[in-house]
Amino acid sequence: MGKQYLVTGAAGFIGAAVAQKLLEFGNKVITIDNLFTGKLERVPENVELIEGSVFDKQVIDKLNGRCFDAIIHIAGQSSGEVSFENPVYDLQTNCQSTLLLLDYAQKTGCKKFLYASTMSVYGDHTPPECSESTELLPKSFYAVGKLASEHYMRIYSQQFDMACTALRLFNTYGVGQNMSNLKQGMASIYLAMAINRHIITVKGSKDRFRDFVYIDDVVDAFLKALARERGYDSFNICTGRAITVEQVIKTITSRLPGPINVTYTDGTPGDQFGIYGNNSKAKDSIDWEPHWMFEDGMDKMIKWAVISAQPGSSEKELG
Amino acid sequence: MGKQYLVTGAAGFIGAAVAQKLLEFGNKVITIDNLFTGKLERVPENVELIEGSVFDKQVIDKLNGRCFDAIIHIAGQSSGEVSFENPVYDLQTNCQSTLLLLDYAQKTGCKKFLYASTMSVYGDHTPPECSESTELLPKSFYAVGKLASEHYMRIYSQQFDMACTALRLFNTYGVGQNMSNLKQGMASIYLAMAINRHIITVKGSKDRFRDFVYIDDVVDAFLKALARERGYDSFNICTGRAITVEQVIKTITSRLPGPINVTYTDGTPGDQFGIYGNNSKAKDSIDWEPHWMFEDGMDKMIKWAVISAQPGSSEKELG
Repeated sequence: MGKQYLVTGAAGFIGAAVAQKLLEFGNKVITIDNLFTGKLERVPENVELIEGSVFDKQVIDKLNGRCFDAIIHIAGQSSGEVSFENPVYDLQTNCQSTLLLLDYAQKTGCKKFLYASTMSVYGDHTPPECSESTELLPKSFYAVGKLASEHYMRIYSQQFDMACTALRLFNTYGVGQNMSNLKQGMASIYLAMAINRHIITVKGSKDRFRDFVYIDDVVDAFLKALARERGYDSFNICTGRAITVEQVIKTITSRLPGPINVTYTDGTPGDQFGIYGNNSKAKDSIDWEPHWMFEDGMDKMIKWAVISAQPGSSEKELG
Repeated sequence: MGKQYLVTGAAGFIGAAVAQKLLEFGNKVITIDNLFTGKLERVPENVELIEGSVFDKQVIDKLNGRCFDAIIHIAGQSSGEVSFENPVYDLQTNCQSTLLLLDYAQKTGCKKFLYASTMSVYGDHTPPECSESTELLPKSFYAVGKLASEHYMRIYSQQFDMACTALRLFNTYGVGQNMSNLKQGMASIYLAMAINRHIITVKGSKDRFRDFVYIDDVVDAFLKALARERGYDSFNICTGRAITVEQVIKTITSRLPGPINVTYTDGTPGDQFGIYGNNSKAKDSIDWEPHWMFEDGMDKMIKWAVISAQPGSSEKELG
């Protein structure tokens, strides 16, 4: 028999993909999404939507005390750049929301809590490989809020015997990514610019690098983490491979027709130069490993994005 | 000529003492305090009071864009225990307040920001000596908010060239401590119980221990930290000496007349077993070291508390 899950942010890229997979396995999924950056048409069919912000207690109250087999908290504004424009909103969406959901979980007897954390909690390091024990030096308000949420989960896990898991997602990309938000998602930003304007404007150095992890692998990590039965833990969800901005752009431009100009401007506040992750802990503890190579993932994403951009097409059908 | 300082929380124990000392040196001091746990009569004479919460943007606006030589942010609910009763309020008072003040500092050209952080950011460790590079594993929501505030300061310092300093205060005690709040301040809680009820109720083990630092030494640390000109840094403000709960109680009961009963109950959520601090970094970097021994500080505090408790006396005159 299917289980019942709360997946926040199912109108967004990662939330929609996780919700979709849970539905495919015969589960019931409810979501809370304020549709600020998410889109209504992204919410998978058969997901029950409560429209509102997770950091609003009155919205949480609309859950009516239903008990979930797990709460998977993915909603939140996810741009480090935007967090500099409104740090207080970022604190609410990425931190207060976690507190309210943990409180809801504890009061309703929900014993599993999964959270979409971020590689940004590390900040920059030399050498650039980060394991879960690397010092945490967040560079953006966004990352500080995510880190505080991790601590909240650790405390709840200790005080109330809940299994809490933070997945530190590295740069997630792939089919279904929001192609109209030019402030979040390095792969989708460059790809959208290349397709729509034939110009890629890069904010910062071409030598910066990221560890790109494909959406299907990220979804798989959430499913694997659901098996955890007790305690708090955090895991790097990454490939362990550094891809430079220059390589990303080459991958995109070599797969698209016509000349595409690339220009460079100043970086954004709090942007990291580059780290990549060590994923041994996720392999050992939750039996997760990535299956997608960057080139293959980008192949698939670019084809999808090109077709989606054609007049009359619907992103959703193609995703 | 005197300077102009904003000292938040000057109706509280530490804020009042810091404000008083700055006034003595001929400076002008303005405070914001919501008087939730602070007391109006505690605010030193000649300090201009804006009554309200620092996490309320409209209250900050009442500063009218005045530029301060430094902002010293001390206000905030300071009980780990209380933070479990209302985690969201704790987040606002200890975290959102810091964001709003940093934003105010940046916009008004204030170049120095001091913050009352806490030893609680460390959590428990074995061995129990903590230096500033010890891993940060906060056990209470209170401590998570304080730690997030430290990160915010580090980011502001990097992005906006401000000198930001976090003082990780260990257990501050002494003359002037709030003797009517039984949820914050180990020394003041036991002392108040002993004087007022002749019964000390201990929540948790007698073997727990703390590093007690006298209020005058803490005030001195804020003054020394004001000299910092650039960058972010954090410092342990502590003695390096562990005093057990049992020793605290013996110190109190041996100095007061009559039998005093001691009973033990369950601990409070998120309470630390015990750590003590290494203060070498504060010695080396800001030339600070503690001058008060625990026994001497307690002698002075107990005499003050006994006289204050007599009918008709005023705590303030005696402080």
